[in-house]
Amino acid sequence: MSSDSQREAQEKETGRIEAFSDGVFAIAITLLILDVKVPLLEEAEKAGLWTVLLERAPNFLAFVVSFFFILVMWINHHRLFTVIRRSDNNLLLLNGLLLFGVTFVPFPAALVAEYLNQPDQIVALMVYNFWFFLIAIFFNAMWWYASSQKRLFSAKTDYALVKHISRQYMGGPFLYFVALILAFIHPYLSLLASFLLAVYFVIPNPSVQQLMDTQNEE
Amino acid sequence: MSSDSQREAQEKETGRIEAFSDGVFAIAITLLILDVKVPLLEEAEKAGLWTVLLERAPNFLAFVVSFFFILVMWINHHRLFTVIRRSDNNLLLLNGLLLFGVTFVPFPAALVAEYLNQPDQIVALMVYNFWFFLIAIFFNAMWWYASSQKRLFSAKTDYALVKHISRQYMGGPFLYFVALILAFIHPYLSLLASFLLAVYFVIPNPSVQQLMDTQNEE
Amino acid sequence: MSSDSQREAQEKETGRIEAFSDGVFAIAITLLILDVKVPLLEEAEKAGLWTVLLERAPNFLAFVVSFFFILVMWINHHRLFTVIRRSDNNLLLLNGLLLFGVTFVPFPAALVAEYLNQPDQIVALMVYNFWFFLIAIFFNAMWWYASSQKRLFSAKTDYALVKHISRQYMGGPFLYFVALILAFIHPYLSLLASFLLAVYFVIPNPSVQQLMDTQNEE
Amino acid sequence: MSSDSQREAQEKETGRIEAFSDGVFAIAITLLILDVKVPLLEEAEKAGLWTVLLERAPNFLAFVVSFFFILVMWINHHRLFTVIRRSDNNLLLLNGLLLFGVTFVPFPAALVAEYLNQPDQIVALMVYNFWFFLIAIFFNAMWWYASSQKRLFSAKTDYALVKHISRQYMGGPFLYFVALILAFIHPYLSLLASFLLAVYFVIPNPSVQQLMDTQNEE
Repeated sequence: MSSDSQREAQEKETGRIEAFSDGVFAIAITLLILDVKVPLLEEAEKAGLWTVLLERAPNFLAFVVSFFFILVMWINHHRLFTVIRRSDNNLLLLNGLLLFGVTFVPFPAALVAEYLNQPDQIVALMVYNFWFFLIAIFFNAMWWYASSQKRLFSAKTDYALVKHISRQYMGGPFLYFVALILAFIHPYLSLLASFLLAVYFVIPNPSVQQLMDTQNEE
Repeated sequence: MSSDSQREAQEKETGRIEAFSDGVFAIAITLLILDVKVPLLEEAEKAGLWTVLLERAPNFLAFVVSFFFILVMWINHHRLFTVIRRSDNNLLLLNGLLLFGVTFVPFPAALVAEYLNQPDQIVALMVYNFWFFLIAIFFNAMWWYASSQKRLFSAKTDYALVKHISRQYMGGPFLYFVALILAFIHPYLSLLASFLLAVYFVIPNPSVQQLMDTQNEE
Repeated sequence: MSSDSQREAQEKETGRIEAFSDGVFAIAITLLILDVKVPLLEEAEKAGLWTVLLERAPNFLAFVVSFFFILVMWINHHRLFTVIRRSDNNLLLLNGLLLFGVTFVPFPAALVAEYLNQPDQIVALMVYNFWFFLIAIFFNAMWWYASSQKRLFSAKTDYALVKHISRQYMGGPFLYFVALILAFIHPYLSLLASFLLAVYFVIPNPSVQQLMDTQNEE
Repeated sequence: MSSDSQREAQEKETGRIEAFSDGVFAIAITLLILDVKVPLLEEAEKAGLWTVLLERAPNFLAFVVSFFFILVMWINHHRLFTVIRRSDNNLLLLNGLLLFGVTFVPFPAALVAEYLNQPDQIVALMVYNFWFFLIAIFFNAMWWYASSQKRLFSAKTDYALVKHISRQYMGGPFLYFVALILAFIHPYLSLLASFLLAVYFVIPNPSVQQLMDTQNEE
């Protein structure tokens, strides 16, 4: 068996993981809208539709923050799989765990939409950011496994760079934990923190960029 | 690193953006049906199922117009990505913003379905067409970025044509704003306008066609 | 521009139509389950869960028939696109019309699930089979357009065979119209007819098979 | 017609089956979240959100077990299609039957979520594991057909290995039947059994691995 045909076969496998993951990300991100409910006619009749829509602000806020969280997760997933060139059983499972996390996001999102500005809003935001904290751990687990299994990368990978990236990603769970704690100060602060974290993780990381380039040079 | 292998790697990236976007478009367009509710048995018992179904006309109307809006957005997205051959971080984000717009469409669609022929119908249609106006802006932002970043296109692209296309697309936000204003005259007029705009934007633009051909000639 | 690179570019286009259509078919077929509702605890407490589930038979029946209708539509769509090798604007639109039909299926399916064994069951089944009749027309329109536009096929296509297939597909709308009429005799007969039609249209048509083979020989 | 171009054409076909199946798996797995309902404000006001969330444990449990069931089905589907290289009509149908099973999973999952810890919980768990039993049969039917139709595999396939794998998969329906019976002893035992079966079927089977390698060597 030539090494070339082997590589081809395994890259095809990565292809189907990516396709399935894309599907799950795309559906989870789109299902979020189902929790943005249209106001009942009776509510609008009393106060007018404008007012009722404005009162729904927490609903829209939860939608926006959750949408960008999943989008940024997808962008980073996409980036990692530019580097991960081969697949094995454990990667399938660790990726499955990450997808489990992503699939569940509509629940804490709906929780925040329902409970923001209500007595139990701190609980809702703790669950919300705890879930993001957990997803960040799943993400690190997958990256850690893929990067330590050198055979999942290409031969030319610069492992000094890989270590550098790992250190940066490892900040994720810690940062989401901080966002969780901020809920005790103010729920909106906690929500703002998770939004800013999405912004932070979407900024192109020069090390990742460099690594992706090395891989492509191969 | 050969220029060929580099191009290949980056075209693969465009492939995954397209796949993810296709997923989001396909799901958003299919979720619209969830807001077309089956009449309750009790309603039908009194007036008969035919009558109750006919009374639901606004529901079906909102479904049809929203379906074709998303379909036409997809067709145009599809066209642009025949021309956009490379991808970078900002494109990922601008495309994400466009998908954000598309994902949200089921909400204003459900709003129109619920509030058409009701006292607050003008508000519903303003929100509806305002959202389409916003999506048109996101679409222009992505196209403007991709076309100004010459490196995202192929080397042979005819930039006179690109400018011509940009001018045409730039009419989109303006036209949807007009549709929004028409809600004050009559809500149905506003809905009709958004339907006609979908028809307008699906007509094959000869400049785009020509540009797609130049790209493929490469 | 070489004829080879042109073909490649246009086949890629067909690829994205297929991907988007696959997405819509896959989502529409999966959303059907949302109308199979879990019985309320109160209902089950009185009569026992087994009894309540058995009373839901129409619900399950509507799910099964609609599932296989969409599956068979997908299989036939899949077959046609083995033959259709190129794409143009009208094909995008006609395919969009077909997807519009498929996307809407969960509504008549939910209608049958709700109204079977109720006074208005004939109306529900007429709407149901009328919608299948309409989809059959959209399907024929797409096939008719693709087959008359010789450029969408490959050069070696056997057009005697194409005509033969067209004649067979043209029976579809007529047969679904018959299923609609059968609702007046008995609703279950009408439902059975649409199920049998799904079986009929999934049986491999030897002419289509032969045509697919000619295309692949190229 | 060269044997090479024929193979290519038919492998493309397998590609679209995989794409459509991936879509259905991805959607079914993501729709599960829709049955995890956010507690109503009134419930939380009385007992506090934490308590209410803890009472929802069966809901979360049903979500987790069903998620991993579908994930493991997808992983095995993915493995089989590394071996299945060609497609025909019956495979399309048998795969369709399997997808039918997967699409329906959200219903028994919601049944367990609603009825666990309720008088009718045994019925709910019997339906749940009966459905998994049925899917295991569909899965075996597809594998049995693909492996007996030697032409769906590649020429170099080791049929001694294939028989070995078939024997292992054939245990599936039996094991899920045992999980069903366990519901009579204790519902949680039955749920635990289906979770353990997911774990069992995800463990890389050395025979399957070996078979996938033979195929790729070709």
